[in-house]
This record gives sequence, C-alpha cells and structure tokens, in this order.
Amino acid sequence: MIDGHLDPGRTVRELRELQALTGDRRGAQRVCWTETWLSAREWLAGRLAELPVTTEIDEAGNQWATLPGRSDRAVLVGSHLDSVVDGGWLDGCLGVLAGLEVLRRVAAEGPPPATVRLVSWADEEGARFGRSLLGSGAAGGRLAPDAVRGLRDADGVALPAALAACGVDLDRAGAAKGQLRNAAAYLELHIEQGPVLEGMGLPLGAVLGTCGVERHLVRFTGQSAHAGSTPMDARRDAFLAAARLALEVRDVARRHGGVGTVGRAATRPGIATAVPGSCEITLDERHLDASVLARMLADTRSASEAIAAAERVEVAWERTWRIEPVPFDDELVALCERAIVAVAGRCHRLPSGPLHDAAEMARADVPAAMIFVQSLRGLSHTPEEDTRPEHLELAVRALDRAVSEALELAAGRAPAEPG
Amino acid sequence: MIDGHLDPGRTVRELRELQALTGDRRGAQRVCWTETWLSAREWLAGRLAELPVTTEIDEAGNQWATLPGRSDRAVLVGSHLDSVVDGGWLDGCLGVLAGLEVLRRVAAEGPPPATVRLVSWADEEGARFGRSLLGSGAAGGRLAPDAVRGLRDADGVALPAALAACGVDLDRAGAAKGQLRNAAAYLELHIEQGPVLEGMGLPLGAVLGTCGVERHLVRFTGQSAHAGSTPMDARRDAFLAAARLALEVRDVARRHGGVGTVGRAATRPGIATAVPGSCEITLDERHLDASVLARMLADTRSASEAIAAAERVEVAWERTWRIEPVPFDDELVALCERAIVAVAGRCHRLPSGPLHDAAEMARADVPAAMIFVQSLRGLSHTPEEDTRPEHLELAVRALDRAVSEALELAAGRAPAEPG
Repeated sequence: MIDGHLDPGRTVRELRELQALTGDRRGAQRVCWTETWLSAREWLAGRLAELPVTTEIDEAGNQWATLPGRSDRAVLVGSHLDSVVDGGWLDGCLGVLAGLEVLRRVAAEGPPPATVRLVSWADEEGARFGRSLLGSGAAGGRLAPDAVRGLRDADGVALPAALAACGVDLDRAGAAKGQLRNAAAYLELHIEQGPVLEGMGLPLGAVLGTCGVERHLVRFTGQSAHAGSTPMDARRDAFLAAARLALEVRDVARRHGGVGTVGRAATRPGIATAVPGSCEITLDERHLDASVLARMLADTRSASEAIAAAERVEVAWERTWRIEPVPFDDELVALCERAIVAVAGRCHRLPSGPLHDAAEMARADVPAAMIFVQSLRGLSHTPEEDTRPEHLELAVRALDRAVSEALELAAGRAPAEPG
Repeated sequence: MIDGHLDPGRTVRELRELQALTGDRRGAQRVCWTETWLSAREWLAGRLAELPVTTEIDEAGNQWATLPGRSDRAVLVGSHLDSVVDGGWLDGCLGVLAGLEVLRRVAAEGPPPATVRLVSWADEEGARFGRSLLGSGAAGGRLAPDAVRGLRDADGVALPAALAACGVDLDRAGAAKGQLRNAAAYLELHIEQGPVLEGMGLPLGAVLGTCGVERHLVRFTGQSAHAGSTPMDARRDAFLAAARLALEVRDVARRHGGVGTVGRAATRPGIATAVPGSCEITLDERHLDASVLARMLADTRSASEAIAAAERVEVAWERTWRIEPVPFDDELVALCERAIVAVAGRCHRLPSGPLHDAAEMARADVPAAMIFVQSLRGLSHTPEEDTRPEHLELAVRALDRAVSEALELAAGRAPAEPG
C-alpha cells in the first residue's frame, strides 16, 4: 500500500496553519519578495528540517528539498507559496504542501528508486512587479534580466532591489537552471481555478497543457457626435462596433472550443451625451492548439474588419502579449490520469487556461504534467477561493500515486499497474 | 422689400470680430460668468448704443435691448453669447448677432407695429457649473436657487459667488420673469449642431421643438471570472449583456424615429484577463413625442430584462436625468417655414435633440419657434464648428422675415403673404 504513511488530512491542517500565519481577513498575503512570503518560506524550511532531505535556496530564490534515491534521476514535485494580494488559501501552496506530504511518505519508506525533489518556485504570480513565473522561468532559462530590470512596484521599488533584499542577484538568477540537470519529470498539483470539474461533478482532472494566449488591444475609430442632434443613420459609433466584435469573440471561441474575452472597454469622449468617437477593447483568446488559436485570431480579425466596414468606422489592432500553447508530456498526462482514476474512479482531461510553473518546465524540455483539483464556483485570486477538504485529500493521494509511478519511470523500471 | 436695410454680410463680419475678441487658437472662450463673457456683453452693448433702443441687464444677467413699437406686445429675438470652453464661432452668438442685424433693419424703418426686444441669455451652456439654460430658466420661472446654490466650478468657486462677481444675486434672479410680461412670441436662430440639413442639401430648417430626454445608468451584474479557466458556457459576462443592449438601443431608436446613445461603458474588474463581473453603461434616449419616448424607454427596459435573463446576469436601472419634450408653437413654426421658403426655396421641419433657450420660453407659455441653419459635418462644441457664409446670410434673411411677420401677428394684424 503506497500511501501507508501518507496523511492527506495533515495537508489540509497545514494549509490552514499557513493561512493563519500568512493571511489576514482580506485573504492570503504571501506576495513574493515580501516579509510575509519569507515567513512562509521559513515555515516550510522548518517542516523540511524534520526530514532526511538536503535543502537549498537557488540563485532565483526557489526553495528546494532533495531526498536522494537509488538513481540520480530526479522527479521534481512542487508549485509556489507566493500569492496575489488578498488571495486564496490554496492557489500555489496546495501543490507545495501536498508535495511535502508525499516527500514524507517516500522518505518513511527508505531510499526511493529515483531521487525526489520538492520545489517551491519563487514569484509565480508576478503580483508585485507584473512578471509572473519568475523563479521557474529562471530555472527554465527564460528569464532575461534586462527585460525585467526596469520593473517597479506600486511604491516605486525596483525589482532588482526587492530581489536583492531576499538574497537574489537578478543577474545571477539564470544559474538556477543547474537545478534541472537530472530532472526526469515534473509533477504539479494545483486547484483548477475554473468551474469545469465542479460542473462535471468530478474532484480531479489531468491537465493536457497550458493554453496559448493571444492578447490584443482593438481600437475602433468613428466620429464623436452630439447624442441629441445626430440621427441614427448618420452616426459612426465606435462603441457599437466594439459591442458587435465582443459578441463575435464569444461565437469564435465557442466555434473553436477555446475561450475569448473582452475584459475592458473604454469609450471617448466617454460621456452620456456624445456618440463614442473611439472605443478601445482588450481581447484575450486562448486555446491549447496553436493552429486553432491562430484560426480564432484570424476569424476575429476578419470579423473586426467586416464590422468596421458595416459601421463605417476604422479598426486597428495592437498585440500586447502572446505565448504559445505548452502541451504537457503525453506519458506523464496518462500517468496522472491513472493516478486520478485509482483514487477517484473517474478522470477528466482538460487544458489549463492560466499559466503555471509546469509550463516553464515543459518549455525547458523537462517532461511535465499537472493534476487539477476542483475549485468551488471556479473562484480564485480571492479569499472566496475554496475546495472541499475531501477533495483536497483525494488530490494529495493522487499526487502521491503519480509520484510513485514517476519514480519507477525515472529509475527506468516499468511502473506497477494501478489498482 | 423688408430687408432693404438688412446687411447679412455684416453679421458674418461681426461674428468674425467677436471670435477675434473672445476666442483663441483653441476656440471660443466665452464661458459664462467670466471676464471674456463680460467683454462679449460689453461689445454687444457698444453695438446697441448706436441704435434707438433702451438696454438693461436683468436680475439673472440676461442682456436686453428694446425697440418700442406701436403696440406694447413684444416679439423677443435672441439666443446666447456664452460658449463652452474651446467652443465654436457660431453656437449661440449667431442668433444674437443676427437678431442685432434684424433690430437695425426694423429700427431704420421707424416704429414697428409691435415692440421688438433683443435678448442675449446668460449661461445657456452651463459650461462652468453644469447647469444649462440658467438665464432663460430664471426668466421662465424655472430656476430654483437652492437647486444650484451648492454647485462649484473646477476650481472650487461656488456658483453664487461667480454670479455675484457679475452683479447677479442668485436669490433675486427669478425677478427676471418680469421681462416676459408682454411677450407675444420668441424667435431664435441657431446652428443645427447636427448633420440633417447638410445631408438633405438644405441651408435652413424650421424646428418643431426640443426632444424629451431620458437619461439612465444601466448596470449589469454577472460574475467576474478568470478569462483563461472559465469555459464560455459557464460565464455570466456583464459586458456581453451590455453590448447586446447597446445594439438594441439603436434598433429601438430606429424603430421609433428617435435617437438613442450608449456613450460610456465601464467594466469591472476591467482587466484583460477577467470576465467582466459588472458593466455600467450610460443611456440617453430622445424623441419629440412624449408618448413615443415613453415607448422607447419601455422597449429598452424590457429588452434589458430579456438580455439579462438570457445572459444569466442581473440588471438595474437608475434614472440620472429627464426632461419632457417641448413642442414649439404651431403657428410660429409655420411662420418660420414660410420665411425659410421665401429666402431659400425649400424648408425641412426637424426636431432639436439639444435643448435651447427657446424651450424655456415655450415652457413659460411664450409662443416660441426656432430656425436652424446647416452645420458643416454636424460638428459643434469644437473649434471645427462651421457653416458656409452664404448659409449664414440666408439665415439672417430668414430670421428677418420671420420677425417681420411675427410683429404683424403680435400687433393683431394678418401677416402679409410671403413672396
């Protein structure tokens, strides 16, 4: 029985303990590169001190615990302790604390077939400086110091100074990539942060990868005019063009099985008595398949041009951000699915809309996969974020099974059949 | 020939002169209760001093010139000299300066059959304190001092202090109503500020009245959610509901022959990566017929409820302002139409979306009507506001004919046939 020493209830208790230590009435406050985040890191260090592991903080501020196995090949397990401001009690820290519990179970059984390494990534959220995946990006070789050197927080503190205060030299952060040397697999448990599993009545899902994202500003320009003196058919109303496009964005997303969002609309002059002469909207489109995402974008762009012509306005596009889809490792996805079926009976495979540290591992050619546990009402990045305790416990059990099987794989042995 | 002494070209030259005196590179700067506005008033006083008229500033700051006729019954002619900040060269002052030219022509012909009174209303625009039609409203008995006493300008100056600096005691402003004692008619020439006449290729139109206005905030409340992790069919997107309503507002306006505008939309949280949990839009609907306007509003409200149900969001309405339609006097509208046909061959009857001082006269039971002259590209409240000089001259001629006929009416005589 591989979870003989596993105590998933302890993970739930430890999550509550961490919440009490690093949260307040308004939610979790473990924003990276702050005292509260450092206190969470210290709390974890205290837990790790009870185990036969070696610990270190790498050049990017990531926290590692290594339990040597009979093979140097390592299975990495982790997530992040940092949170957004007023965050939830599960986002990130669930994966770290579940990994801690798995580490305890493995350690109790004597040397594992391959090495197990728990990682708590620094600054997954980018909550203070707007650059997410900083620690895992550094380890994955994708952090360009010059691209973030000028970032400042809301108080004007520069990113390099905040990192230095936590012992991280921005220009040396890339040396964290040495941590991936013997990595055979990366496994991460995370809350879904969406409503899909709840809607299906399933506690757990296997994640196929993280969606590609296309983010644009779309600006329609018509003619501002008096709302009282301009007949309807003489108008060139930029907002109505934007309204039509927003509805089209939904149709495009439905047609292609992706998601598409207009999150903000700003009109000018922006007063009740003027026909909007210009309207700018944000567009965010996501899909797990790069070619489908490209078709979504193309469909939306041509819709915007047809709408602009029909409304006699101009349209201009400006890309603000994009990232390719990151598919996870087929073998590890199947492994996660087996682990989920073993503990919960059923599993759903789903893409992740949000990015995760696992995507940086996959982009760095470390085979990666994730397990999602159901989020209540799909809420996250808010103190209302929640998951049923019994689902959290099932999630710890599923991660434990997945790690066990991954250790066999890493050691080069055929994994045991689930059952 | 009634316009024997009329010099419409002089009106165009005087408009240019006033523009040079009270405007700058950014446009007209005759904001009411400022030095520049006072200098425009002084300039007009200088012109009036050359005529056999008595002048006065009433208790609300309105400027009057009276040319006594053989009857005490008076035909009032006027508009306003005040402008918005960075305004155009015609809005308001055209009507005053055209009236001045008509006054000259009438004075040159000896005592008219009835009295002619030129009026330059104070603070039509409400540009400094946000309360429009202040002077004509005071004369019409509709200025409640307590309703405006607390208003302040952008620099924190209180309205009563600004008026006092121009010799107006807010609590005595209502005494201006004495000016309407013998009023038999009120005629006002104004630029259209819309594109209708230009679209029809007509220089002049007779105004049927000012539209009723319904102004509301409409707030949709759904559920904010992660743009990446929330499938399309699990969303309760407040912006998409608002987008659908904005398009419906246009359909409603077209169906009923009115206008309807969504001028501003504000989403929350208002970021690219979140499905809008709430969206507030402004709604402005106008029609000349009160019952049709009520149907427009009812149609829009029921559409908003159907949309909210379909989108699984809530909708709430808040009225921010309304005014009843003010139809002008049938006989005077016909009189204006005859005058327009006489000088321009053709006339179009049209409602006014914007409010005008004439509406306050009509609401005070002074028979009122207006003549509109074509605006180029429908632009107003901007230095780009313009009208062809030949159309301005035609407009002065039409106003002159209308005043002549109104004087006959006021004196109780049948007007002469046009020709």
